[in-house]
Amino acid sequence: MWLQRAITLDPRPRGFHLVTREVVGALPELGELRVGLLHVLIQHTSAALTLNENASPDVRRDFANWFDRAVPERAPYWTHTLEGDDDMPAHVKSSLLGPSLTLPISAGRLALGTWQGIYLCEHRDHGGPRRLVATAWGE
Amino acid sequence: MWLQRAITLDPRPRGFHLVTREVVGALPELGELRVGLLHVLIQHTSAALTLNENASPDVRRDFANWFDRAVPERAPYWTHTLEGDDDMPAHVKSSLLGPSLTLPISAGRLALGTWQGIYLCEHRDHGGPRRLVATAWGE
Amino acid sequence: MWLQRAITLDPRPRGFHLVTREVVGALPELGELRVGLLHVLIQHTSAALTLNENASPDVRRDFANWFDRAVPERAPYWTHTLEGDDDMPAHVKSSLLGPSLTLPISAGRLALGTWQGIYLCEHRDHGGPRRLVATAWGE
Repeated sequence: MWLQRAITLDPRPRGFHLVTREVVGALPELGELRVGLLHVLIQHTSAALTLNENASPDVRRDFANWFDRAVPERAPYWTHTLEGDDDMPAHVKSSLLGPSLTLPISAGRLALGTWQGIYLCEHRDHGGPRRLVATAWGE
Repeated sequence: MWLQRAITLDPRPRGFHLVTREVVGALPELGELRVGLLHVLIQHTSAALTLNENASPDVRRDFANWFDRAVPERAPYWTHTLEGDDDMPAHVKSSLLGPSLTLPISAGRLALGTWQGIYLCEHRDHGGPRRLVATAWGE
Repeated sequence: MWLQRAITLDPRPRGFHLVTREVVGALPELGELRVGLLHVLIQHTSAALTLNENASPDVRRDFANWFDRAVPERAPYWTHTLEGDDDMPAHVKSSLLGPSLTLPISAGRLALGTWQGIYLCEHRDHGGPRRLVATAWGE
């Protein structure tokens, strides 16, 4: 069985956001898969997806704290500056975190750890809605 | 053909550890796949999986050297500090390296490069056993 | 349907290089897949693959600017130094970016965002040709 669907995430402010419920809610057919995988790609180069702690909002705030320092705006070595101070750091952060997730499905549910949730990593100040392509396959 | 299995890795000290043999040894059915893929997810948010050099222990030590400096403990910007000094850096390191690997299978074996091995990236001082979900599919 | 093929990328200088056309051109059978996925693994530990902005060469130059500062050569903490100044940083950069990409296929084409392209991240000064294993499956 194959399922492929575009999902549009609502615009969010710059930062790290839990979107597990939004992604899974858009894919009710996952419940029919005894075993399989879900792949989700974000079709942008200034936002990313990752899996991390799903309980404490301060973990997500600390992600922003670290990434904003590690990949700073207005650094003297940036040459691609035409699209705004937040643009080039957003590209680098996005590749550090990655554009996609592949997640196992077991007995109709994502087989994640207890504390794992899907983060939308929004690196632009005004990123707007973000498009995902979700692909599930299995039996 | 689909195969899905939980694998528990023995506790290891903080650092980078080669676990290729342990993972492949838990999946003897891979030998039956002419072509396919293996996906492995670590069900934790303070440890990660990556693929890197499988020969020199000093490469794995230098991974720790770099990551411990790039994502330092007790930095003034951490706000999520209740779970120990090693906790929040472990979350960030884990997302930098990623929670899963997808690897090609060819003629019953992982089609890795000569020097590639699977690293368990243990970022906690006392991480305990780590659970993986391995999913293989192919024909 | 399963397709698996080795692809050898021509040697490139150290830096970030767009290789979307080279990868897709080696896989004409993708056009037959209504829905599916493409997985590409680089079989090396000193080069990586990522997805990022496919238009401006200065974005790719800034990737090099950032990574060369974040993972510096000749840092005092490197102990694996026998294979050259560029070797150990290349290993770390490769794991930060990741050894593989998984990309959705829709109606015979990669379902990427408008601005997304495949980067070969060459971290060695003289990396030579780079081997990929491409695996596509779908229906």
